[in-house]
Amino acid sequence: MYFHVQRLINDIEADEPDPAAANALQEGLGGQFGEMRTMMQYLFQSMNFRGPAGKPYRDLIQGIGTEEISHVELIGTTISRLLDGSPRYNGEKTDPLDTPGAGGATPLNLALDQGNIHHYLVAAQGALPVDSAGNPWSGSYVYNSGNLVLDLLYNLMLEATGRLQKCRIYEMTNNKTARSTIAYLIVRDQAHENGYAKALESLGVNWNTLLPIPKTNAERFPEVKKLTDLGLQSKQYTFDLAAQSEAGRIFQGMSPSKDGTNLVADEQAPQGVPSTIAEERFEEFSPGLDADLLALIQASAEIEMAEVSQTYGPVAPTS
Amino acid sequence: MYFHVQRLINDIEADEPDPAAANALQEGLGGQFGEMRTMMQYLFQSMNFRGPAGKPYRDLIQGIGTEEISHVELIGTTISRLLDGSPRYNGEKTDPLDTPGAGGATPLNLALDQGNIHHYLVAAQGALPVDSAGNPWSGSYVYNSGNLVLDLLYNLMLEATGRLQKCRIYEMTNNKTARSTIAYLIVRDQAHENGYAKALESLGVNWNTLLPIPKTNAERFPEVKKLTDLGLQSKQYTFDLAAQSEAGRIFQGMSPSKDGTNLVADEQAPQGVPSTIAEERFEEFSPGLDADLLALIQASAEIEMAEVSQTYGPVAPTS
Amino acid sequence: MYFHVQRLINDIEADEPDPAAANALQEGLGGQFGEMRTMMQYLFQSMNFRGPAGKPYRDLIQGIGTEEISHVELIGTTISRLLDGSPRYNGEKTDPLDTPGAGGATPLNLALDQGNIHHYLVAAQGALPVDSAGNPWSGSYVYNSGNLVLDLLYNLMLEATGRLQKCRIYEMTNNKTARSTIAYLIVRDQAHENGYAKALESLGVNWNTLLPIPKTNAERFPEVKKLTDLGLQSKQYTFDLAAQSEAGRIFQGMSPSKDGTNLVADEQAPQGVPSTIAEERFEEFSPGLDADLLALIQASAEIEMAEVSQTYGPVAPTS
Amino acid sequence: MYFHVQRLINDIEADEPDPAAANALQEGLGGQFGEMRTMMQYLFQSMNFRGPAGKPYRDLIQGIGTEEISHVELIGTTISRLLDGSPRYNGEKTDPLDTPGAGGATPLNLALDQGNIHHYLVAAQGALPVDSAGNPWSGSYVYNSGNLVLDLLYNLMLEATGRLQKCRIYEMTNNKTARSTIAYLIVRDQAHENGYAKALESLGVNWNTLLPIPKTNAERFPEVKKLTDLGLQSKQYTFDLAAQSEAGRIFQGMSPSKDGTNLVADEQAPQGVPSTIAEERFEEFSPGLDADLLALIQASAEIEMAEVSQTYGPVAPTS
Amino acid sequence: MYFHVQRLINDIEADEPDPAAANALQEGLGGQFGEMRTMMQYLFQSMNFRGPAGKPYRDLIQGIGTEEISHVELIGTTISRLLDGSPRYNGEKTDPLDTPGAGGATPLNLALDQGNIHHYLVAAQGALPVDSAGNPWSGSYVYNSGNLVLDLLYNLMLEATGRLQKCRIYEMTNNKTARSTIAYLIVRDQAHENGYAKALESLGVNWNTLLPIPKTNAERFPEVKKLTDLGLQSKQYTFDLAAQSEAGRIFQGMSPSKDGTNLVADEQAPQGVPSTIAEERFEEFSPGLDADLLALIQASAEIEMAEVSQTYGPVAPTS
Amino acid sequence: MYFHVQRLINDIEADEPDPAAANALQEGLGGQFGEMRTMMQYLFQSMNFRGPAGKPYRDLIQGIGTEEISHVELIGTTISRLLDGSPRYNGEKTDPLDTPGAGGATPLNLALDQGNIHHYLVAAQGALPVDSAGNPWSGSYVYNSGNLVLDLLYNLMLEATGRLQKCRIYEMTNNKTARSTIAYLIVRDQAHENGYAKALESLGVNWNTLLPIPKTNAERFPEVKKLTDLGLQSKQYTFDLAAQSEAGRIFQGMSPSKDGTNLVADEQAPQGVPSTIAEERFEEFSPGLDADLLALIQASAEIEMAEVSQTYGPVAPTS
Repeated sequence: MYFHVQRLINDIEADEPDPAAANALQEGLGGQFGEMRTMMQYLFQSMNFRGPAGKPYRDLIQGIGTEEISHVELIGTTISRLLDGSPRYNGEKTDPLDTPGAGGATPLNLALDQGNIHHYLVAAQGALPVDSAGNPWSGSYVYNSGNLVLDLLYNLMLEATGRLQKCRIYEMTNNKTARSTIAYLIVRDQAHENGYAKALESLGVNWNTLLPIPKTNAERFPEVKKLTDLGLQSKQYTFDLAAQSEAGRIFQGMSPSKDGTNLVADEQAPQGVPSTIAEERFEEFSPGLDADLLALIQASAEIEMAEVSQTYGPVAPTS
Repeated sequence: MYFHVQRLINDIEADEPDPAAANALQEGLGGQFGEMRTMMQYLFQSMNFRGPAGKPYRDLIQGIGTEEISHVELIGTTISRLLDGSPRYNGEKTDPLDTPGAGGATPLNLALDQGNIHHYLVAAQGALPVDSAGNPWSGSYVYNSGNLVLDLLYNLMLEATGRLQKCRIYEMTNNKTARSTIAYLIVRDQAHENGYAKALESLGVNWNTLLPIPKTNAERFPEVKKLTDLGLQSKQYTFDLAAQSEAGRIFQGMSPSKDGTNLVADEQAPQGVPSTIAEERFEEFSPGLDADLLALIQASAEIEMAEVSQTYGPVAPTS
Repeated sequence: MYFHVQRLINDIEADEPDPAAANALQEGLGGQFGEMRTMMQYLFQSMNFRGPAGKPYRDLIQGIGTEEISHVELIGTTISRLLDGSPRYNGEKTDPLDTPGAGGATPLNLALDQGNIHHYLVAAQGALPVDSAGNPWSGSYVYNSGNLVLDLLYNLMLEATGRLQKCRIYEMTNNKTARSTIAYLIVRDQAHENGYAKALESLGVNWNTLLPIPKTNAERFPEVKKLTDLGLQSKQYTFDLAAQSEAGRIFQGMSPSKDGTNLVADEQAPQGVPSTIAEERFEEFSPGLDADLLALIQASAEIEMAEVSQTYGPVAPTS
Repeated sequence: MYFHVQRLINDIEADEPDPAAANALQEGLGGQFGEMRTMMQYLFQSMNFRGPAGKPYRDLIQGIGTEEISHVELIGTTISRLLDGSPRYNGEKTDPLDTPGAGGATPLNLALDQGNIHHYLVAAQGALPVDSAGNPWSGSYVYNSGNLVLDLLYNLMLEATGRLQKCRIYEMTNNKTARSTIAYLIVRDQAHENGYAKALESLGVNWNTLLPIPKTNAERFPEVKKLTDLGLQSKQYTFDLAAQSEAGRIFQGMSPSKDGTNLVADEQAPQGVPSTIAEERFEEFSPGLDADLLALIQASAEIEMAEVSQTYGPVAPTS
Repeated sequence: MYFHVQRLINDIEADEPDPAAANALQEGLGGQFGEMRTMMQYLFQSMNFRGPAGKPYRDLIQGIGTEEISHVELIGTTISRLLDGSPRYNGEKTDPLDTPGAGGATPLNLALDQGNIHHYLVAAQGALPVDSAGNPWSGSYVYNSGNLVLDLLYNLMLEATGRLQKCRIYEMTNNKTARSTIAYLIVRDQAHENGYAKALESLGVNWNTLLPIPKTNAERFPEVKKLTDLGLQSKQYTFDLAAQSEAGRIFQGMSPSKDGTNLVADEQAPQGVPSTIAEERFEEFSPGLDADLLALIQASAEIEMAEVSQTYGPVAPTS
Repeated sequence: MYFHVQRLINDIEADEPDPAAANALQEGLGGQFGEMRTMMQYLFQSMNFRGPAGKPYRDLIQGIGTEEISHVELIGTTISRLLDGSPRYNGEKTDPLDTPGAGGATPLNLALDQGNIHHYLVAAQGALPVDSAGNPWSGSYVYNSGNLVLDLLYNLMLEATGRLQKCRIYEMTNNKTARSTIAYLIVRDQAHENGYAKALESLGVNWNTLLPIPKTNAERFPEVKKLTDLGLQSKQYTFDLAAQSEAGRIFQGMSPSKDGTNLVADEQAPQGVPSTIAEERFEEFSPGLDADLLALIQASAEIEMAEVSQTYGPVAPTS
């Protein structure tokens, strides 16, 4: 069973809209090696897992899988912010937004030569479940052979490929909004890479100096370095509300990346930051309410809410 | 940010393996109107939501969306159980499983005339991210126009179609494992249908006697009736760890289904039941460990785990 | 601009339901060489046609394309009839249909081992826009190179392949409902094959004895022979309401099939037969109206209709 | 059975070629909410319709479905015109077209940075059965649950989404060729939205002020306003040659859009305008005939045509 | 540059037709982990290879890739043989084949309940480029990250998964035709697994007892044991006509499978067996020639052939 | 069985990188009428061929099919070269490549507005198995009806369409690297067109002046003219190592293109040119080895290779 808290797993830095960067990030969301894929792959591997003796392995996969849902939320929101208000992109400061189409205006004409016109035509300046070339995410991506060693090997390769692609995206844009999320995911992918590599070490493999893949020097990527200096590449959260996860039996000891750190899995979750709701975009008819409908919405907002009876979760971290 | 607890949202009744029923249930998992679709659609609608005034609507969608992840987990596990051990299906009691292929044996020969041979050839008797006709789930299913009224209308139609298809699946099998999950999801789909219908009522629509769609009498479906007698079709959980959801502003008052109940949203989550890990299946080489590898796994199970520092979630409900 | 008359282009013989035959016919509807494909391909070739001098060729393509829409209607309705009421298929005369799911009944259990479970789970015993293996129809099938010779060559090959596949379907079933439509389409495909072959003859090609493809003796297929005896393989209708089509400039003279007939294009359309509306299927919740909704429908049926002002079409042929 | 007349359902205004606008319009042709989809969806819903009592509903769907074929023809032709001759796009007045590739010339070099290179490489400056992001149209788009209420609800949502997307396309371009068709389709989509909304009203729903979706003021879109001033959003044609359609029992009374008009369905079809055939494009080898082949074509044009015997349709409106 | 010799890489044992086994084998041909995929993946990895220092690795990939084309040929031919003549399958000894459809006969009626009806309707009892669930092979399967370590890791996983699936297929059928090819491919997949594992060993990895994956005892599979007794799992051919391959620098030394063998790469290619051409199938209209066309073919067979000037390849091994 | 020699079938001229041209060429590699399609189609037609009397036809198809693998290798390598080093494209001479991402650099920023961002993000400046609009190659493209006449007709149309599209690509770019390969393939496509046309002539068809399609004058395309002056459009190689091909029985006599040449099939293969391995691209982490891993690779390069025992192929032509 899954729960949610209205916080993003990491902060998204503010910057100008950047539809080209947004489209590159789509690979990290809906691409073959993006977050929707890892999320779904680990969910299926967890549901179909065989062999009670392997619970620590199942719990490792399940915990990383739960984190991936928050990564989908993070990168999806990032893409949304990069697109939001982009008709004013490139310093075009006159604001055509308030009166969409007024007198035959064309506030959305920038859409015609962007990476994916669907960002404007279909998704109202929001994220899409597609990759950076516009291919919809497909269930055929999910790998779950049922063979534990193969599943671990695939997951290691999957995380490393995701990290490789994000390093390439990093080199495509210096938009701060894009980079704050990319850098975070590069580091978390390495943490997951470490997790699966360690699981294979527990089955006898000695990686020697092969890891991490790709071989990157964090120093080249200042935004990444800040996070590895904090050791985020060697930490795994459980995201488990009842402390039943045994992932920590695997995620411990010397990092397979041989960066001098030890793996630790002694926290439930990162702190995160509060999430917010985006502004109206009239030129997209989104949310597209007129005065009458808005008044009705206001009315429902004034209704007294019932007290919710809770089992999980104190209020503290959300303040 | 998302969290997990190692409990299923509803109990799955035990019964014989039934690969044909398993395949029918795939529609409810990976079909165009199945749980993967609702989960992803509501996740995208939440990330891309516009208009801070509409927070109660966003929270309604987000809360239902969180529940859908648990539905994916529930129906995926149900399919997995219906397939598990199915070479012994149909009373074939001699056990060919222990020695796969021994002397040229064919323990998997039943796979050749099942609904989806991939259940055995690819997924090791587990669930797949495909529909009942074998089509992989596609990102092109996700609808998120950014227009609030359209999104709500679509969601209403989506839940009603999901429920319609599950009523048809109900009529295809009387396997108890299959039906315990189908009946639960029929009732929860109606709760979600009520939620979106109510949201549209708050914008002025009067549904009169049109709902629920389809018009079904719970009395015909004994397993469904048990749950509607408990009022499960009129309840919505927040699944929100910090009690910030305002979905209750909408999900309240007389049910749009006009069944004499009132909608209530005053609980965080259902109790659920502990989840378990499936047995080895040697004929699938799953998990496929030999004695040496098993010994290594045992070793890691004996490592002392670190104490996890928790922010959310007491231990009580998991016992 | 297109018009419709509530008549089927050919009669569909009555017989028992036959879901396996229905599924085979899906290839002729939604397959790569089926009627949806020919309909769309010719529609695109007509819209994109270049070269005013080539009007007779455009008109030939456009006229055949219009006929293909009626073929989609014909084969779709045939599939629908083959599926309709199929829970009573195979002489299972007890009627489970009136009370779907009553007390946990399984009237749709036959769906589990049919060619395409979607016929019951998704389409309420109706036709689907997919092929006989369940693949959805794809826009990538449409061929329109813009090069006249290539387009004609492709169309000839397309019609011949469609006819080849229908000959194979003929050999798969002797259900009369299925065969009445298959036989009709085999003959009409040959007429179209003749049309495109003739168009290429007008550009200099001499086919000698190569046609028709496949080389079939109508005598082997009694239902086909009845129609070729009437010369239906050598006739092309214009389906043009204003007699502007110049297709007859091409579709004339000795048949390229060398069967002793001449091609003729001197009629607007066949007579056709009145179409009817299928019965309710309660087990499918289709149309799924309860007494209240039915009463409302009755009410609208009693409203006096406005007189329609007509430009095209006398009433005579519809009586 | 279907018929055709060589007239377009609405006039297409002349303007410069505009490949970017052409690509945006592809969404309205081959997109998930475009005209190919509505056409096919209503065709399937008509063929598979259940319940003779619901004939007025079937006839409404079938009539709109017939209109959609003409919309496919209209928007396809519009795209074709926007692409036609586009190597001279942007005032590049030197004419590279007459001698494609002569001496190694590159008349098609503009294709490299257009929205969809296939417009030049595959389709010879013509329309494609794909959306604006290049995805081929898919049969999986078609929705036909067999449940009348759900099908109507979906159709309402479908028309509103189509209209929403066309409003966005309107804001992307001010090319007159593109806008004349977009504006027409915005208004016709609203007519269809009104039709399905009215059908649901006849089943008891009161929409209050919710419609139309999206909430747009025609005043903002001058080209749209011209058509709504004529009441085109409140009119539905039967396109039925034998006056058997009962759609008028539903399509009558006060418009659900509450714009002060009444719905009327008392005409068979709009007048339309004659359609024409596009010019040769040598650089595309389309139609690609040399002098010899052209002479042969001329020959066939001189053949005397047979007199066509007609049942439907006077000559008058085509003059 | 590639060359062909009219010999199959391994012998296919004769047995009865078996369409169910044929369909299972489709996974090994057109499945996500089948031979078309390995062939294409290694072809792309070879073309796009970076780093002249890595030539031995490129040559290893290229040599295995060349072998995979012969595997496509082998498994495709095997499927073709399993389907060929299958209307007589299951001992139905009366021969309906000579007179397809005669008097309305249904020689192809078995097609209706087979794994893939396309084997009869589309492919004339031949192999298809699809998997065992009917999904067409997709270019999106090909993995080529450009990162050498990742590509090797993926290839190792790919070969192991292919072998895992073939072990499962082995357990589904005991048809000798099917098994002779499956057993051969199980052993060759292990040879390739050894090759990629060895390449990673050369980069420092110590696999300890992890390999092979899956852990299978050849003794269980008699047909496999025969081949491993010959050491076929530890041999790699170059398939290189000019002896330029440096794959042998990697494919040497102790087998990573730790089965006591050493890897050897000192042969150009296996001997193979002559390939033959299948018989006519009249019920499929394949090849579908009548007496006239057959006479024309005979004529061309009598033409004297030109002497071919050869650069590569003596005649000896083909006798 | 297939063999390889490390030579390209034709030389690729050197020129500047040109990612736009690279993307256009993708149509010729992974497009519906590209080399992957012809290669696979002929491979399947060869494996499934029926009728021993038709061996010359099978051998013609098989020989052309073998050539197509070398065409895939040629065009794939060409695309790879056009992309290689393209961050320095357009004269941007400062070299950002050595230190990817250093200090937050963006050497890959050109990727954001190229035809297919995947060339940089996924494929490390290499070729992809997709078309020019980014659609992955699909097994559904392969046509193999089993009917000899239809398969030949389709193949003729396929080669002509491939050639038509390549003529259009020629007109899109004058990059010499792109054109050297395009021109070669235009000419070879015509040779294949001649082969299939001749095969149909042997069955009685008289093409008169219809061929070649498209009607192009080689004089317009200087790079093409050079090759037709050498008669390359009228030559077919066997690529058969044991001289068993009977394709020469068909591929002889007057060319169906009526260009005054005779068809000849008396050579095994063209000479070709040696192939090379591309340089490292640090910004792509390809191959992504650090000093340690590189040292290990060096070590394996120093191992003494075993002597390969050869059956086919002398060393001469590779020098």
